Amino acid sequence: MKTLLHVILLVLCGLSLYAEPTQTITHAGSEPTIKGSAEYFVGDVHVDYLFKPKESAPYSGAYVTFEPGARSFWHVHPSGQHLVVTSGTGWTQEWGKPKVEVKAGDVIWCPPGVKHWHGATATTSMTHMAITGLLDGKSVQWLEKVTDEQYNAQ
Amino acid sequence: MKTLLHVILLVLCGLSLYAEPTQTITHAGSEPTIKGSAEYFVGDVHVDYLFKPKESAPYSGAYVTFEPGARSFWHVHPSGQHLVVTSGTGWTQEWGKPKVEVKAGDVIWCPPGVKHWHGATATTSMTHMAITGLLDGKSVQWLEKVTDEQYNAQ
Repeated sequence: MKTLLHVILLVLCGLSLYAEPTQTITHAGSEPTIKGSAEYFVGDVHVDYLFKPKESAPYSGAYVTFEPGARSFWHVHPSGQHLVVTSGTGWTQEWGKPKVEVKAGDVIWCPPGVKHWHGATATTSMTHMAITGLLDGKSVQWLEKVTDEQYNAQ
Repeated sequence: MKTLLHVILLVLCGLSLYAEPTQTITHAGSEPTIKGSAEYFVGDVHVDYLFKPKESAPYSGAYVTFEPGARSFWHVHPSGQHLVVTSGTGWTQEWGKPKVEVKAGDVIWCPPGVKHWHGATATTSMTHMAITGLLDGKSVQWLEKVTDEQYNAQ
């Protein structure tokens, strides 16, 4: 009986390996919202994952929402990142440059290796979709905290 | 004088090649909305391009809006495609399978080589963000029209 079960399982595994690829739909509300870790974010941030990287499509998608005052730590993307601001108004800054305001509908391209942060403004929330590529399996290199002085500088 | 101009141009080109990479922001409203071509779409479709593929990030992003009854032709993505439905309710169908309803917040992964279409329902509009990879510079192979019979089938 045990052997028969093993044979059936092996056949099913074999079939699944040869299965035709098919569209998959992840329905709204089926993935839990994740709180942004205090290791990488200042303030209240939450992440709604949309899709994971795949072999033929090595980039992830997620909505990230920053409450007023919240922002990422300084960081670098080894393969770059596209951000599409989907609601609210936020700030982003490259190391050594002034911070810049971004609003719903704006699209940001951050090339590989550029040290930067992004987040809400001090008074308004901001949500963006982040589409982030992988290089050698890595999408981000986290650096130091964005201090209040850096965040509030004009 | 002409030679001096050439030298200046060459120096500027050289500098631009060695320029530090920097974040770029495309502000909302700066790119024109494009009407979906009748070669690839049935009905009223418009496309708002978000970002183009880059060497380190070989995938494009665009919002695509389908008015009621509108849909793509049958097609295949050589490198797959992620769709994030951002508003409304639509339909998608794989060749040989029943059509499926998708709603705002749903995420669709279409693996490479899967023949399919997507669009609005007969009575409601639908907008999705499409994130589409490239294989050998190609993001889509367009096939035949989705007939009214196919579109309206249960």
